[in-house]
Amino acid sequence: MQDAVAGIDLGGTSTKFGLVTSEGNLLAYNAIPTNSNITYQCFFRQLYDHIQELKANLDTGVNLLGIGIGAPSGNYRTATIENASNLHWKKDVPVKKVLETYTSLPTVLMNDADASAVGEMLFGTAKGMKDFVSITLGTGLGCGIVANGELLLGQRGHAGEIGHITVFYDGRECACGRQGCLEAYVSAPGLVTTAQDLLSQKNTNSVLSGISEEAMDAKNITSAAQQEDKIALEAFNYTGKILGWKLADIVASLNPEAIIISGGLAKAGSLILEPAKRCMEDHLLGMFKNKVEVLSSSLTEKNAAIMGASASIWKELEEERAYSL
Amino acid sequence: MQDAVAGIDLGGTSTKFGLVTSEGNLLAYNAIPTNSNITYQCFFRQLYDHIQELKANLDTGVNLLGIGIGAPSGNYRTATIENASNLHWKKDVPVKKVLETYTSLPTVLMNDADASAVGEMLFGTAKGMKDFVSITLGTGLGCGIVANGELLLGQRGHAGEIGHITVFYDGRECACGRQGCLEAYVSAPGLVTTAQDLLSQKNTNSVLSGISEEAMDAKNITSAAQQEDKIALEAFNYTGKILGWKLADIVASLNPEAIIISGGLAKAGSLILEPAKRCMEDHLLGMFKNKVEVLSSSLTEKNAAIMGASASIWKELEEERAYSL
Repeated sequence: MQDAVAGIDLGGTSTKFGLVTSEGNLLAYNAIPTNSNITYQCFFRQLYDHIQELKANLDTGVNLLGIGIGAPSGNYRTATIENASNLHWKKDVPVKKVLETYTSLPTVLMNDADASAVGEMLFGTAKGMKDFVSITLGTGLGCGIVANGELLLGQRGHAGEIGHITVFYDGRECACGRQGCLEAYVSAPGLVTTAQDLLSQKNTNSVLSGISEEAMDAKNITSAAQQEDKIALEAFNYTGKILGWKLADIVASLNPEAIIISGGLAKAGSLILEPAKRCMEDHLLGMFKNKVEVLSSSLTEKNAAIMGASASIWKELEEERAYSL
Repeated sequence: MQDAVAGIDLGGTSTKFGLVTSEGNLLAYNAIPTNSNITYQCFFRQLYDHIQELKANLDTGVNLLGIGIGAPSGNYRTATIENASNLHWKKDVPVKKVLETYTSLPTVLMNDADASAVGEMLFGTAKGMKDFVSITLGTGLGCGIVANGELLLGQRGHAGEIGHITVFYDGRECACGRQGCLEAYVSAPGLVTTAQDLLSQKNTNSVLSGISEEAMDAKNITSAAQQEDKIALEAFNYTGKILGWKLADIVASLNPEAIIISGGLAKAGSLILEPAKRCMEDHLLGMFKNKVEVLSSSLTEKNAAIMGASASIWKELEEERAYSL
């Protein structure tokens, strides 16, 4: 019989989950679609059934001790998913309450970007670092801040919303209802908008001209850029430049050792990281120049949030044990 | 015989110091000019003589246990003043080493803005808060960040340099050598530049037209604004608006409970705070609206840094005592 917790990465389209030991071994792993058209009560019950199945299919017995879950707009302080824009459950979802009712297991909810940051700190690129910023680039721009070895949560648990710091006050409309947010430029949809803007402004031949507006996505643009397509390369340069501008501000504010980049868009690698690093260095205050690393995550996308969420529930279990001694 | 520490606020023009008990009582206070034309060894020896004098002049005996000092570019991690632009000592000044050699007393050096933040937390407007940002507006823009009740220092002790986040990439030249820094707009010299720009651009009657470029300062502009001078009011509105823009970004990043504003320029009160609050609220992400206070410091300028520096050395003394038990 082996002790383990369930680590869950609840995303807009799919929910990934695994069984993780206190040493960080991922014993088993699976994913299901995030069906937010059924009630959240129903969804979490199904999810727990899948976790039980995962456990039952293992050769060695597992003693499940707790559940850690990272979710968009997941708030550690309230243990609730609050108005997640890419989930259909419109009201607040009291995740900890629902899961603890069904499972009787202690549960921790956290923001998905914070879960990734903890995963990076314990098992990934940020191993051994005490001050760093983890940025997830995908449909949106998520961010977890670690200062002095601890997650920075803020008064209400909403710290790290750097996707919504402003780049241009008269800039693009953002899904949040504001204008010119970083996320409207530095995210997969932001990259697509930039490529489409460039196509309509310039008379440059591009393989992207042959792709309909609806079909264009970050993957098309990445493969075009890898084939040296000028529009695609320019779109990445612009996206990286804007990211670099804001990284320079983040460094001045927080003095991190490194910025760790993960998520779907980060798979484009140096296409986005090189212009971001260059532009960040150009704009850094002297004392920070050449002292902050911009690194790709060494964890696969599925792992960072699962591992971070697992580690967080392990931490709570250990603290409880320490108090009860 | 009463136990006390010396709290020192070393500024570009004057150095203020006091004797403070562990309960935060300021027993005595004085100030001397910051003479950075003599060697720093000489200056700190003179400063210590003044502290001894302060102690000798008290009716009750004082047992001096330690020294806490806040200084521009003071680095807690290295205990050194590093390249302070408004001091003449061009190389690094190893403050802790120098003072401990002369005085044999345990010494803590910290950034002046961080000292103010600790002072606000323990004795000022931020009393009882665990997540807040303290901003000092004077010749420059200093900032101390408190997250979860602890100062956020960053990897090398340089966190909080928000005076050098960028407002306009093609903006005003900043003393740091970069362009468009927040400090180049939101500071006493920034306000003066804005007023002078407005005077040269507009054909509005203003009492400020009668003041020479050299003689114009934040005090002139404040008293003109208090007399409803249009140019002066517009200069404050512009300064406050830019501050508000960046406060919205700081709130999204750190989710503080409040922003505490202190320093010489903050004495203009609502002239700068009102446009700053209004513009911050206009640009806040929905979840933060009407939830973050922008407040004036309740400590006089002389007190915040002295009290914070004292509290920091008291904290170290208590930790040492706890370890030695």
